Amino acid sequence: MARKIRRIPKAVTKLYPKDFYHQPGTLPGTIVVDENAEPPTIFLIDYNQTNFIRKQIETPENCVPYLDKESVTWVDVQGLGNQDILQRLGQVFDLHPLVLEDVVNVPERPKIEDYEDQLLFIARMVVPKEKTCGFYSEQVSLILSKHYLLTVQEEPEHDCFEGVRIRIDRSKGIIRKQGADYLAYALLDAMIDGFFPVLELYGERIEELEEEVMVNPTRQTLQNIYQVRRELLQLRRAIWPQRDAISSLIRDGSELIGEEVRIYLRDCYDHAVQVMDMVETYRELASGLMDVYLSSVSNKMNEIMKVLTVVSSIFIPLTFVAGIYGMNFNTEKSPYNMPELNWYWGYPICLAGMAVIGFALLFFFWQRGWLKNSSTIKRD
Amino acid sequence: MARKIRRIPKAVTKLYPKDFYHQPGTLPGTIVVDENAEPPTIFLIDYNQTNFIRKQIETPENCVPYLDKESVTWVDVQGLGNQDILQRLGQVFDLHPLVLEDVVNVPERPKIEDYEDQLLFIARMVVPKEKTCGFYSEQVSLILSKHYLLTVQEEPEHDCFEGVRIRIDRSKGIIRKQGADYLAYALLDAMIDGFFPVLELYGERIEELEEEVMVNPTRQTLQNIYQVRRELLQLRRAIWPQRDAISSLIRDGSELIGEEVRIYLRDCYDHAVQVMDMVETYRELASGLMDVYLSSVSNKMNEIMKVLTVVSSIFIPLTFVAGIYGMNFNTEKSPYNMPELNWYWGYPICLAGMAVIGFALLFFFWQRGWLKNSSTIKRD
Amino acid sequence: MARKIRRIPKAVTKLYPKDFYHQPGTLPGTIVVDENAEPPTIFLIDYNQTNFIRKQIETPENCVPYLDKESVTWVDVQGLGNQDILQRLGQVFDLHPLVLEDVVNVPERPKIEDYEDQLLFIARMVVPKEKTCGFYSEQVSLILSKHYLLTVQEEPEHDCFEGVRIRIDRSKGIIRKQGADYLAYALLDAMIDGFFPVLELYGERIEELEEEVMVNPTRQTLQNIYQVRRELLQLRRAIWPQRDAISSLIRDGSELIGEEVRIYLRDCYDHAVQVMDMVETYRELASGLMDVYLSSVSNKMNEIMKVLTVVSSIFIPLTFVAGIYGMNFNTEKSPYNMPELNWYWGYPICLAGMAVIGFALLFFFWQRGWLKNSSTIKRD
Amino acid sequence: MARKIRRIPKAVTKLYPKDFYHQPGTLPGTIVVDENAEPPTIFLIDYNQTNFIRKQIETPENCVPYLDKESVTWVDVQGLGNQDILQRLGQVFDLHPLVLEDVVNVPERPKIEDYEDQLLFIARMVVPKEKTCGFYSEQVSLILSKHYLLTVQEEPEHDCFEGVRIRIDRSKGIIRKQGADYLAYALLDAMIDGFFPVLELYGERIEELEEEVMVNPTRQTLQNIYQVRRELLQLRRAIWPQRDAISSLIRDGSELIGEEVRIYLRDCYDHAVQVMDMVETYRELASGLMDVYLSSVSNKMNEIMKVLTVVSSIFIPLTFVAGIYGMNFNTEKSPYNMPELNWYWGYPICLAGMAVIGFALLFFFWQRGWLKNSSTIKRD
Amino acid sequence: MARKIRRIPKAVTKLYPKDFYHQPGTLPGTIVVDENAEPPTIFLIDYNQTNFIRKQIETPENCVPYLDKESVTWVDVQGLGNQDILQRLGQVFDLHPLVLEDVVNVPERPKIEDYEDQLLFIARMVVPKEKTCGFYSEQVSLILSKHYLLTVQEEPEHDCFEGVRIRIDRSKGIIRKQGADYLAYALLDAMIDGFFPVLELYGERIEELEEEVMVNPTRQTLQNIYQVRRELLQLRRAIWPQRDAISSLIRDGSELIGEEVRIYLRDCYDHAVQVMDMVETYRELASGLMDVYLSSVSNKMNEIMKVLTVVSSIFIPLTFVAGIYGMNFNTEKSPYNMPELNWYWGYPICLAGMAVIGFALLFFFWQRGWLKNSSTIKRD
Repeated sequence: MARKIRRIPKAVTKLYPKDFYHQPGTLPGTIVVDENAEPPTIFLIDYNQTNFIRKQIETPENCVPYLDKESVTWVDVQGLGNQDILQRLGQVFDLHPLVLEDVVNVPERPKIEDYEDQLLFIARMVVPKEKTCGFYSEQVSLILSKHYLLTVQEEPEHDCFEGVRIRIDRSKGIIRKQGADYLAYALLDAMIDGFFPVLELYGERIEELEEEVMVNPTRQTLQNIYQVRRELLQLRRAIWPQRDAISSLIRDGSELIGEEVRIYLRDCYDHAVQVMDMVETYRELASGLMDVYLSSVSNKMNEIMKVLTVVSSIFIPLTFVAGIYGMNFNTEKSPYNMPELNWYWGYPICLAGMAVIGFALLFFFWQRGWLKNSSTIKRD
Repeated sequence: MARKIRRIPKAVTKLYPKDFYHQPGTLPGTIVVDENAEPPTIFLIDYNQTNFIRKQIETPENCVPYLDKESVTWVDVQGLGNQDILQRLGQVFDLHPLVLEDVVNVPERPKIEDYEDQLLFIARMVVPKEKTCGFYSEQVSLILSKHYLLTVQEEPEHDCFEGVRIRIDRSKGIIRKQGADYLAYALLDAMIDGFFPVLELYGERIEELEEEVMVNPTRQTLQNIYQVRRELLQLRRAIWPQRDAISSLIRDGSELIGEEVRIYLRDCYDHAVQVMDMVETYRELASGLMDVYLSSVSNKMNEIMKVLTVVSSIFIPLTFVAGIYGMNFNTEKSPYNMPELNWYWGYPICLAGMAVIGFALLFFFWQRGWLKNSSTIKRD
Repeated sequence: MARKIRRIPKAVTKLYPKDFYHQPGTLPGTIVVDENAEPPTIFLIDYNQTNFIRKQIETPENCVPYLDKESVTWVDVQGLGNQDILQRLGQVFDLHPLVLEDVVNVPERPKIEDYEDQLLFIARMVVPKEKTCGFYSEQVSLILSKHYLLTVQEEPEHDCFEGVRIRIDRSKGIIRKQGADYLAYALLDAMIDGFFPVLELYGERIEELEEEVMVNPTRQTLQNIYQVRRELLQLRRAIWPQRDAISSLIRDGSELIGEEVRIYLRDCYDHAVQVMDMVETYRELASGLMDVYLSSVSNKMNEIMKVLTVVSSIFIPLTFVAGIYGMNFNTEKSPYNMPELNWYWGYPICLAGMAVIGFALLFFFWQRGWLKNSSTIKRD
Repeated sequence: MARKIRRIPKAVTKLYPKDFYHQPGTLPGTIVVDENAEPPTIFLIDYNQTNFIRKQIETPENCVPYLDKESVTWVDVQGLGNQDILQRLGQVFDLHPLVLEDVVNVPERPKIEDYEDQLLFIARMVVPKEKTCGFYSEQVSLILSKHYLLTVQEEPEHDCFEGVRIRIDRSKGIIRKQGADYLAYALLDAMIDGFFPVLELYGERIEELEEEVMVNPTRQTLQNIYQVRRELLQLRRAIWPQRDAISSLIRDGSELIGEEVRIYLRDCYDHAVQVMDMVETYRELASGLMDVYLSSVSNKMNEIMKVLTVVSSIFIPLTFVAGIYGMNFNTEKSPYNMPELNWYWGYPICLAGMAVIGFALLFFFWQRGWLKNSSTIKRD
Repeated sequence: MARKIRRIPKAVTKLYPKDFYHQPGTLPGTIVVDENAEPPTIFLIDYNQTNFIRKQIETPENCVPYLDKESVTWVDVQGLGNQDILQRLGQVFDLHPLVLEDVVNVPERPKIEDYEDQLLFIARMVVPKEKTCGFYSEQVSLILSKHYLLTVQEEPEHDCFEGVRIRIDRSKGIIRKQGADYLAYALLDAMIDGFFPVLELYGERIEELEEEVMVNPTRQTLQNIYQVRRELLQLRRAIWPQRDAISSLIRDGSELIGEEVRIYLRDCYDHAVQVMDMVETYRELASGLMDVYLSSVSNKMNEIMKVLTVVSSIFIPLTFVAGIYGMNFNTEKSPYNMPELNWYWGYPICLAGMAVIGFALLFFFWQRGWLKNSSTIKRD
């Protein structure tokens, strides 16, 4: 009955999307398009110190005229749902088949690859879900060349690049004076910084769980702790390789990354390390919480056992004594021998006394929360 | 009685096959053939940009004419059950005795070894068992030379090379334009990609176990979690050295591996890392599940204890009170003193009331699943 | 009822301060000032072998005249609550925008960065809270140049630099003969040494918890162990990167650090390693304590179970025997058959005997502490 | 009573032999001879491509004539029980005092040391005990020089070199064509391969324990799991440094090891890695089993609790109702009121019914194995 | 009552001595003398191949005449309780202020530091406490120069150098032919070898605990396991950095260490590794024991539960049946209906039977050890 409603909530992030791989033995560079995904929309931003163009374009070919100019061109493709457009994109930007495969066949592990005139950066962007504690996660591929930057986002919604777009538009800071490498850095930095709001949510949630575990642990608490551990595992899987990729970019350098941008990347790397650090700290706290939860459950059982032991151990011997005497004391031998048996209201008073004891105990148990059915897990 | 049917299911993968080693002190290069194994069948594929031959051959010597030609020759031996053929294979391909030992005496740990004019790659291929969650695992040895590739599979069934054969046959992609090194890469890549469908099965199984642990943990659940952990341990043992071997091949290079193929190997390495990553994630989830299982069991005991405590603690004092008075209230002193004792149907009504209480409690326990014998483990 | 007062105490150190990050995508170098924070006060110490000036100055510009002199100038800014002053500070000392961001946007991970003519050291200073076991933690940034040292403290209270100021004032040791690099070392060393009093507090607290866990474990103990583990995690997060930073400074050197100071830094590094060592030891002890706590709780339950089992198992069969005979022995057949039933004081004596047994058992349980409500957590 | 027979079985391998160290401060090179140990017997094998001599010799000096010859001389000393012979051995072979100390004062950690004209290899040889699951472990020291190989075994029994002796005798493989270095390799390889039969025993034992833990966990199971973990720890301690030693020998080389033998050593190293791998896998399985055991015990308690709860909770309220009515229903008011009380066989039938219920319950508990005294640990 | 005597025994080794650090910000090189400590006594040994002097001297200055001679001078200072003498020692041996600080302000982490003409080695010496299982631990600082060796021991009692002194005195081995570097090695080796007797004690103690945990686990056992883990943690903290220091000395060398002594140091390093190895093994065993202890406790509870369940479940239904019938069988209807009620000795026999049952059960529980109060921890 109660069991019918016990289902894992929909909010559980899938471990891996279905069919995220192609059949073993297929051609390298084969791209797999999920036709249910959103079709790609393409945005173009072209700017230099003086000019600024921002528009949506229809086909990949439309951006060709901008690519050769000295200005910085940022082509932002959002959505992976159309094979034809993606293939043409590959031709326009002259992408190696393996690059196109990495970009399209999500999820790929974050990494950096240097193809001499192009630099491929696979990154993972997270955006907090404000209501439930959780996050959207999508892959962003950056292909950096001398004068342009191509970014491919897995989904059109939820990006954290708006701040960068505004900085370009309003010419805040030095972004309009710098090249495509600085733009790539700015986007990377925005993605790394995007982990902080998500982590803040988890920090709050862990503090809530700490309170819950100490004060009133239920089975729901257990599930929540497991859920948090699982999601932190996913965050770790996203940030760890990203940090390594930035680190190897700083160490090995690339002709496409200027000296000045490298200093900024170092700052970006520091932030990635800080994210890692927080994720690890949260994971240790969450697994510490599991220990505390187990102890709390044992403590609760201890309490229950104590009540049972005290009540049983006192009344069982007494009942034995009462049982021996029956209690057939001879009421005729003495007025002190069970005069209650001869009272007019003896039986009703006795029943009433029993009812009072019974309800007092029920109240005591109800107040401790032992009467509610803790095994039913509430769902959102 | 019930205990008789409790047996470990046959589906349990053996930790190690029996007699997988030869006696200490025997000659290095000694090969041990399990005569119950399938006798080897040999397939030959010979191709260049224009020609394509695919046939089954009877004896190793039959492939000699193809080996010296400029075309790429792929000799695929399936099955290890005939010592004579394996010895002759060693002679035809001029294999070092230690190479032949590694190839024949399965299981060997995945590794790469460079014998100047030959490159030995020991790999492990996994193929999912579709029905039960599990996988077939067999060793594949690749011996790469300038113009040929010799592959030796442990068993004739279950390979994941069909996609590659089709690509050669239909001349898809660049495979017909490339040498034997590209072919070796294509097979390696197919084997690494072959881990993904297996991992997907485990991903699903872990999600099922999560649901089971949260909602209705039984002893079968415990066994399943242990089974998953054990099989993931085996997967990890298979992929870890494979990744290291590919990594050292990329790092150290070899005269037999062309520059272009090395770029493809980097992609293959990325996939191996991703497999490792998923295996580790799944292992962490599985061991987290064990914690949750333990808590769930404690929670269940808590619930049981609460019912026992509530019922006992209420009725034991009441029984004591009832015991004191006997309940021998004098029915003659007052009409309120136990009039039931003098009713015509008093005793049957009382018995019926007891039966109602008894069955109500039985129903309550049955509904919570406490009456079924949880200790009998169901087998597939 | 009791549950209303169960709240996490205020003493819990926050995992991370709120709003410690700026929105993803904002300009690098953007500084975020918490206007509730204390406004900065600036202290200037200028000294050489013969002269010594110590005063509070109003504006950053006031320290310009001292900066170019050959004497060592120490500008100590305490508090981060005024954006304008911080910006002007950046101009006076010619700080790179990223440096200013690191200094102002606390908390930053401890690190060292070399900007040719300036060396940035982000460190974390801890000061023990004497009453409760805990510590204040704040970020201190050191910017070292040839002739001056700029330090920026997050908060005006609690610093551990007074010893150094006194050494300068009284010209103790070699500090007045050395340059700004020695001053920087002296402050770093004071900060590292500042971890020891904090660790001593934790050492004492762990010993108290050991005693508590062995002798009388309560739910409060559990919470205390968790709290200690959590705070040691924070200490570890503070000291680990600090140690790495000092290590890389010794290894890579810097033009701003003299040869002699480097020997002193090695000593400072030894102390950092010792701090790390103690933190790790304490963490292992704390997690060992958690195991012991769990066992103690199980042991306690064992004890309770034993009492219940002994009492129930003895009296339940006896009650059964008493129940069979009713105990309606015929008092008329023999003077030995329940003569008590005919005594004058039979019933009162029997009731009194029961009361004695009941209170004796209650005393026994009270003495073991089973009657007090262990689930209410006392708060400070 | 039962407790008297509970003793740790003799089969437990000692952690360390008593008195395995000499007093701190004694002269380096001091050798400690356990006079209860077997006195050494010395075997000499001398061979080249054409000749073969095998004989037992009395004194170390007897082998001097063979040492300078071009042929390969293998002097095999078995047993360490005579100080004089060991000292003379040191003189005959011109051993450094520290080498003699390492050879005689067992156990020494496996290692390799290069003394220019001699190469010392300390190894550990394991031989399975066929009946009980366990192994004999002894130290074997190899001292390799240009034309001879000196091996010193801790005990005369149990060696796994017989296969090598036969290969030399019958001139199987290339051993007679190779030098002393190949012989050293052959012995090393035999020792490494000697781990596999031991590991196979543990593999089987773990599978038995898996079955036992799932189906019928007892305290004996717990002890067995601990025992397996402990012995695997010893195996790991034996193989880990051995692997490192072989690895450093391959990496650094030695003038005494020919190029060809180095290829064979690589094969030997692969086997050592495989042994490590299996040991680690088994250890992880064993510690997973401990978790499963704990859960099984909890599950069992759950089952017991359920029976107690169901029986108590049903009958306690019923007994209360029965207690209220006494059951003094007036048999005279109605023929339905407890007619059994007036039956002729009423009391015997009632007693018989109780006996039936009691024995049925006893049978039920006996069938579940709850009546046997699980706390007595059976010994082999 | 019982609780009053539950105190942590004095034998518990303190985690860290009080006041082991000086206030943050104090002058580097400040030495802190515990005036309660033993005042230093100074011993001088001066020897070369022919001469040998051994005497106690009063003031540090007394050893000046020996320092410049070609002979080897060993100045051994025991005790740290007099600031003046320590300061003068620093002047006589021309110690760097940081060296003096390291030597005096114990405990310092073991380490090696090279000051060109002096080599500082901070080591930790352990000496077993024979009666209780435990060890004395003190810091020994070695300052090696060309012709002398200065050693400073924290306490005058318990050193393990007597063997070395005897070797010098009696000219055993090569020690009189070697320089101060060999003497330093001999002392280091004696200190490392000094760990073995301590470890042997722990090995025995772990074997005792294994027996105890399997057969009769009590709360005292738990405390003992924790105690062993804690002390092994301290041993590990002592030996780990010592091993690293020796390793770096071998690797980097020093002008003060001759080539021949370096070979001996390699032997010393092997022993340090062996100590590490044993400590780690013991720690793993101890934490495995904790798991086994937890299981044993659960097993014990299982046993208790089984007895309770069997007894309760059998007698509660029977009592219910007895309760129904009252047992008011009409003794007049049949001679079989409760004839006992009319027996002359009916009641005394019944009481006696109850007493027999009660005492039989008490004996059964006493025999299992359930009646003794396990919660009182016995102290030494």
